[in-house]
Amino acid sequence: MKKILGTTLTLLGLTVFGQAKEDSIQFAKISTEILNKGKAYNELRELTKNIGHRLSGSASYEKAVTWAEQKLRDAGADKVWLQEVMVPVWVRGKESLQIKTSGGKWKSLKMLSLGNSEGTGGKDVSGEIIMVRSMEEYDKLSPEQVKDKIVFFNYPFSQTYIETFRGYGDAAKYRSTAASLTAKKGGKFAIIRSLSSAFDDVPHTGSMRYQDDKKIPAVAVGSTTADELAELLKSQKITAKLNSNCGMKGEKLSHSVIGEITGKKDKSVIVVGGHLDSWDVGEGAHDDGSGIVQSIEVLRTFKNLGIQNNHTIRVVCFANEENGVKGGVMYGKTVKENNEKHLFAIETDAGGFTPRGISLEMDNEKRKQIQSWADLFLPYGVYDFKNTYSGTDLYPLHDLGIPTAELVPDSQRYFDIHHTEEDTFEKVNRRELLLGASTLTQIIYMIDKNW
Amino acid sequence: MKKILGTTLTLLGLTVFGQAKEDSIQFAKISTEILNKGKAYNELRELTKNIGHRLSGSASYEKAVTWAEQKLRDAGADKVWLQEVMVPVWVRGKESLQIKTSGGKWKSLKMLSLGNSEGTGGKDVSGEIIMVRSMEEYDKLSPEQVKDKIVFFNYPFSQTYIETFRGYGDAAKYRSTAASLTAKKGGKFAIIRSLSSAFDDVPHTGSMRYQDDKKIPAVAVGSTTADELAELLKSQKITAKLNSNCGMKGEKLSHSVIGEITGKKDKSVIVVGGHLDSWDVGEGAHDDGSGIVQSIEVLRTFKNLGIQNNHTIRVVCFANEENGVKGGVMYGKTVKENNEKHLFAIETDAGGFTPRGISLEMDNEKRKQIQSWADLFLPYGVYDFKNTYSGTDLYPLHDLGIPTAELVPDSQRYFDIHHTEEDTFEKVNRRELLLGASTLTQIIYMIDKNW
Repeated sequence: MKKILGTTLTLLGLTVFGQAKEDSIQFAKISTEILNKGKAYNELRELTKNIGHRLSGSASYEKAVTWAEQKLRDAGADKVWLQEVMVPVWVRGKESLQIKTSGGKWKSLKMLSLGNSEGTGGKDVSGEIIMVRSMEEYDKLSPEQVKDKIVFFNYPFSQTYIETFRGYGDAAKYRSTAASLTAKKGGKFAIIRSLSSAFDDVPHTGSMRYQDDKKIPAVAVGSTTADELAELLKSQKITAKLNSNCGMKGEKLSHSVIGEITGKKDKSVIVVGGHLDSWDVGEGAHDDGSGIVQSIEVLRTFKNLGIQNNHTIRVVCFANEENGVKGGVMYGKTVKENNEKHLFAIETDAGGFTPRGISLEMDNEKRKQIQSWADLFLPYGVYDFKNTYSGTDLYPLHDLGIPTAELVPDSQRYFDIHHTEEDTFEKVNRRELLLGASTLTQIIYMIDKNW
Repeated sequence: MKKILGTTLTLLGLTVFGQAKEDSIQFAKISTEILNKGKAYNELRELTKNIGHRLSGSASYEKAVTWAEQKLRDAGADKVWLQEVMVPVWVRGKESLQIKTSGGKWKSLKMLSLGNSEGTGGKDVSGEIIMVRSMEEYDKLSPEQVKDKIVFFNYPFSQTYIETFRGYGDAAKYRSTAASLTAKKGGKFAIIRSLSSAFDDVPHTGSMRYQDDKKIPAVAVGSTTADELAELLKSQKITAKLNSNCGMKGEKLSHSVIGEITGKKDKSVIVVGGHLDSWDVGEGAHDDGSGIVQSIEVLRTFKNLGIQNNHTIRVVCFANEENGVKGGVMYGKTVKENNEKHLFAIETDAGGFTPRGISLEMDNEKRKQIQSWADLFLPYGVYDFKNTYSGTDLYPLHDLGIPTAELVPDSQRYFDIHHTEEDTFEKVNRRELLLGASTLTQIIYMIDKNW
């Protein structure tokens, strides 16, 4: 196809070299503009420090909506609007987890209830802890062994995978299913070892899901607490006591924020986006404040460099990725209903770390075409086009047959801080954040030009 | 050569696939061992927290020597020894830099004297500041314009280069030559804008060099102080006053620390190393505590996995890289005098960040051979074999015709903290550090097996 044509032209000594050179010059312009004049880092400071974390349904999320609207206008969007969507309202409230050995005193543990979990309704719920190291171990337990117990799923995050998203994927089922599995055998609540690549005492929240109506609580503890608990359980019985107010409090009208620059040739759409909501701890800096400010930077860069976009470049700041994906689903639904042609959609929701690649979820022909541009990206440290997943918010678009993608930043540090108090602005490096924005702008420039 | 042979074998359907597969299995073993059982991170904690920074000639450097000796023995070295070397003794002492506008009050600035700089001998030295933005601007000034002035070289670190070492290289001449250039035209001392990729108020030290006997002081200020000073100078005259005790205090006997596991087939040597000294601020964590603990990890991994090394694998913890390179020079001199055959030497002195490649300084044939192994490294995020420099401590070996190399970690964060109070253990990520150690072990495994 394109590539063969290119090769042929090269053999003929024709203009393909000029073409590649033109693209290469444009790539350098984009990178130079963003590294020197990018505003993403300062905007991230505003979002994280002035607004902070912003769970769906919270007042701070609504502040973030107003903020994002303004930032899209400032960046030069031709059109900015809010897309209505009903989101779940989950509230943490007060929570405490204590343990005691027989004859010992109660000792508080650092913990976080898992997102979407029901609490104890403000009452103490206690029982003896039994620990399992894996699903296989849990499956062997009889209901008699689990009845009235607290099940502690102490499954460690695998350090072996090079891409930490694989370690996360491997452990994710413990977070999502621990409560329902425990309830099925009559346990009182579940404790999980956090999905964390770090060896520290930072608990990680994140969404869980009930499989039925037996809604018992699930909480997470940090790696060192998990290790200490395991050590104690070797020699003695431990009682745990949970008291928490968390729970789902219905739904609320909320919004995704959308801004675009209109296509000069046609109105077909190229989407770049991240999610505006975050968990209710830390500042949602890497997850996914970074993705929001990077996406806005793409739009600003097209405007500032005066790049004539053939197609509409649209930034979508999705609502409610963390505990419902209602924003992503609503966006997909609207695209379908309006029969709105989309060429390509890319999400950035893997942290504001130094970019290494782009993951491509699309047919083989389109993937190969993008891979044929790899040499243009290589000078920017972006070499990895092998992955075939895309962002959570984009699955509804993928289901409509739209080619989707995700920025692949370096993953080593992400799961140290993901969904924790530690996901703060200070953990984001300015140049790394801006380089990610540059990669996004470059791929969108190529798609806009060639598709 | 090798590669053609490989291709031929593949065409013949012979053992090359088995060979590549065997290497690939060994790479995975190395990575799994280090990511799960590596001790480099804990050792770095010991070095940085128990010993701290360790400038050549200081008591803490000598503590680091004893520590490194022990760690090499613990790691399983067959032989550990100290290599004597005379090192310069530079001492910072007390220092202060103040500025004042005409009629205003003195105001202290955060600053660091540059390493190897002479101070003011404890006396106040003051004068009017004149600012230049570049060497070209400075060259245009007459001695009359500079006489008795304080020259402020406000050259910004370029944000445009993707690899920040290029930005550093571009700005480095300001640090090394500012004092002598200022002295030549009769100025009293020089202030430089720090060689920093960050926009903060952290001054960066680092070595400077006198070109002649006119030894006037040179100091560095952080980026925001530099910007504020530039702003003030737009509208008014500013006087600066420096008082410092720093200076060169002769030489002292010190040591590089060396440990090795003896080659099973022959005694030719493969070197992996970093430098044990650091600047006298911060903890020398990325620069170059990381390199030291990664190098020791290589040796430990060969032992722990029971890899039969054909050649001698030698870890060299070089003395005095920062302000003299006396350790590297002595090592090269000894190799030459003893006519000790060296196959390859690699240094890790660019921070303990996630690895991206290996820089290769050697003849084309050897470089191409290593590049032909790229597919083995790719699953570990190591793809970049294009660079052709190697570590400072290895230049004496390079001059002897020995192939040299350097680990290429991601460079985005390095020059935010390089040579500052901020280069602390907390800035190093465990997995990133260990992945670097894994890359070093993998390349040495390949060299040992194939050369």
